[in-house]
Amino acid sequence: MRVKLSKSNLEVSRIVQGMMRLNSWGYTEKELTDFIQKAIDIGVTTFDHADIYGNGECEEIFGNVLKNNPSIRNEIQLITKCGIIRKDENSNIRVKHYNTSKEHILKSVENSLKKLHTDYIDLLLIHRPDPFMNPEEIAEAFYELHKSGKVLNFGVSNFTIQQFKTLQEYTNLPLITNQIEISPYNLEHFENENIYFLLQKKINPMAWSPLAGGKIFNPSEEKGQRILKALKEVAKDFNVSSLDKIVYAWLLNHPVGIIPISGSGKIERLKNAVEAIDIKMNREQWFMIYEAALGHKVP
Amino acid sequence: MRVKLSKSNLEVSRIVQGMMRLNSWGYTEKELTDFIQKAIDIGVTTFDHADIYGNGECEEIFGNVLKNNPSIRNEIQLITKCGIIRKDENSNIRVKHYNTSKEHILKSVENSLKKLHTDYIDLLLIHRPDPFMNPEEIAEAFYELHKSGKVLNFGVSNFTIQQFKTLQEYTNLPLITNQIEISPYNLEHFENENIYFLLQKKINPMAWSPLAGGKIFNPSEEKGQRILKALKEVAKDFNVSSLDKIVYAWLLNHPVGIIPISGSGKIERLKNAVEAIDIKMNREQWFMIYEAALGHKVP
Amino acid sequence: MRVKLSKSNLEVSRIVQGMMRLNSWGYTEKELTDFIQKAIDIGVTTFDHADIYGNGECEEIFGNVLKNNPSIRNEIQLITKCGIIRKDENSNIRVKHYNTSKEHILKSVENSLKKLHTDYIDLLLIHRPDPFMNPEEIAEAFYELHKSGKVLNFGVSNFTIQQFKTLQEYTNLPLITNQIEISPYNLEHFENENIYFLLQKKINPMAWSPLAGGKIFNPSEEKGQRILKALKEVAKDFNVSSLDKIVYAWLLNHPVGIIPISGSGKIERLKNAVEAIDIKMNREQWFMIYEAALGHKVP
Repeated sequence: MRVKLSKSNLEVSRIVQGMMRLNSWGYTEKELTDFIQKAIDIGVTTFDHADIYGNGECEEIFGNVLKNNPSIRNEIQLITKCGIIRKDENSNIRVKHYNTSKEHILKSVENSLKKLHTDYIDLLLIHRPDPFMNPEEIAEAFYELHKSGKVLNFGVSNFTIQQFKTLQEYTNLPLITNQIEISPYNLEHFENENIYFLLQKKINPMAWSPLAGGKIFNPSEEKGQRILKALKEVAKDFNVSSLDKIVYAWLLNHPVGIIPISGSGKIERLKNAVEAIDIKMNREQWFMIYEAALGHKVP
Repeated sequence: MRVKLSKSNLEVSRIVQGMMRLNSWGYTEKELTDFIQKAIDIGVTTFDHADIYGNGECEEIFGNVLKNNPSIRNEIQLITKCGIIRKDENSNIRVKHYNTSKEHILKSVENSLKKLHTDYIDLLLIHRPDPFMNPEEIAEAFYELHKSGKVLNFGVSNFTIQQFKTLQEYTNLPLITNQIEISPYNLEHFENENIYFLLQKKINPMAWSPLAGGKIFNPSEEKGQRILKALKEVAKDFNVSSLDKIVYAWLLNHPVGIIPISGSGKIERLKNAVEAIDIKMNREQWFMIYEAALGHKVP
Repeated sequence: MRVKLSKSNLEVSRIVQGMMRLNSWGYTEKELTDFIQKAIDIGVTTFDHADIYGNGECEEIFGNVLKNNPSIRNEIQLITKCGIIRKDENSNIRVKHYNTSKEHILKSVENSLKKLHTDYIDLLLIHRPDPFMNPEEIAEAFYELHKSGKVLNFGVSNFTIQQFKTLQEYTNLPLITNQIEISPYNLEHFENENIYFLLQKKINPMAWSPLAGGKIFNPSEEKGQRILKALKEVAKDFNVSSLDKIVYAWLLNHPVGIIPISGSGKIERLKNAVEAIDIKMNREQWFMIYEAALGHKVP
């Protein structure tokens, strides 16, 4: 099952594989190639990177697979991000900050292309909204990258409604997604109304941390315990034992068309996400989880 | 005095009579018929229902009057709402939730028409913003109901600015009101800026709980005491003894064109609301009440 | 260095001189004339007033200089504001409130013109968003003032995004600025997203209290101490000893095009603000101050 992103020709898989922790999976190149192939086999063809993941190592490790298996490139879609400048121990950066200058965006993409051993990125995201952003510069960078064919599509991550509108105002290239944190544990983008805005604009959000980093399954406080209880009750309705499927189904069933990003390196976990696509959750079930997260019933 | 709602042909009365508690008024059918007739006589021709008021009883009791006095229908405007699914003791609903599916909206309206003994609703409102809403389905339901003549106009209740925009994006039928809680006790929709948005769009809000359920007159805490004091001071200016008139005047004088919903079953209370239409409050008086509610002067 | 304000023909100076405390500077007319001339000489040609500054005295004192030196009028741009009704000890106003009625706006401008000894205002601002505002009346007042040539341009002060949109909807005259509080000490308009909105609309904000009333340099609490430390570190990069220059540079370098209003009556302080125009701050430096203000690094 695939999703054609609004206002673009880009088709991504219904579940995206996240690459943030790739450098900690401990895979040999052979094992990683195997993992990628299995992901593709079960329909997960979209892989989510960022220039800063593993301090650049994640793109590089992934790129080595593409280098030695170039035919894979045509079967997959690559997402990467730029704009965050980390304060690393060895660098002379004094504070973590954002850099969304034209110069930096172009340089970051060049690096990503080289590391990933590809000549194009399917979707480039501005990683974080930059309070010092000059949207005109970002738009110029997007235009050049698009013209040269180095980046096919553009989007943002963690933007508010207004930040999205501001950047969009400066470019004719459509922003085709906003990658945001969504999970029963994090309803922030219901509260700040991004969900409603994306519904208005018919833009699919991508959800990072859909399982709240595992917190949902090992709750240390009341909120987590409430959510866990609700998940178990809904799981019973479907006779499903893996609660992560219920979380994914909760995301996948929402009308806004959430595309969850699975961050695990275990193929079984990815399979669970994919199998959740078939679970049709009704309104009562969806609200059981939503209200457990809220801590009270709806008004 | 009547108000033609923006972008529609619907004229409602300046004061609307709320029917939420009709089933607890203890009226015989004769007494209710009498109440409705008296309301009409003083210019209150618009009656506000919801499918869930009194668990459906309120529409039914009111509908019996229409059944036995069919000529009343032409003199009045009927509002009703749908979308809330209550968890009642006898039902097998596990959590209170919202249902804004096409199927449910159509079914709910059919029920309301039957109970109210009418073949059309003047104004149908989505009762609460639904975090799981599919605006496309709502728009389809509105379209069908409009085409068949079963519902003449559409609106929402308790929606934020963004939720309003999202739903409006999906339909050519104008959303002609947002029924929200407004009273000196509840400034929420000044704070969330709905008032400014409705002013921008020239849409009249309807105000539920304009007297804050009576809390204003029997204040148990400081805020209520501050408001009461201000109301008394302004009442003195007008040589008015009924403080509810001052509250209604505070609402009626606002440039956004607030249409208050009086919830009482006593005709004297409704008369007070109607008489408030003639009170012209000046800016100083309006701010005396507003600042008492805020708890501090404006910056 | 001058700034042409978006959608208008008005050019203001990159730094504006604020006149709020003029009546407390203790200047003779000769000294004030001298101050104004020196400001003009260093490029500061825009002067910011309000009808209520010094209870009307500030406009009057300034106007006396114009009366006796009429040639100055052609060299400067005058901003003034209206809409606030103060509760003064001697008046019979019961509460501080806002008055944005057509009648009051017209009357206030007449007074300002008389006091300032000028026949036109370059830029009139609504001083505060008025929860009781009737945008139609404001628009009518603007139209008349514009037609008669008494006011050349219009804007607002302290408005939110929605309040700005609401008023703009009612008039074809563009609102060309929003004068808001911005300083490292006050990030409110980053948080409420006015900065992003103004960036979207290409509207220059003016910043009042850019030095947070001096609080930045004599911090009594942790936040101020953090900001002070960051300012000192950045000042070292530029080998600058006056920290106010660093604060002004932090404002002036932002892509939204902030126009700071210097409130001091000392020409040396104004010179510092002007000299800050030449400081090119990089992203790391800008974020050092921003994060000191936040109290944490960016996500």
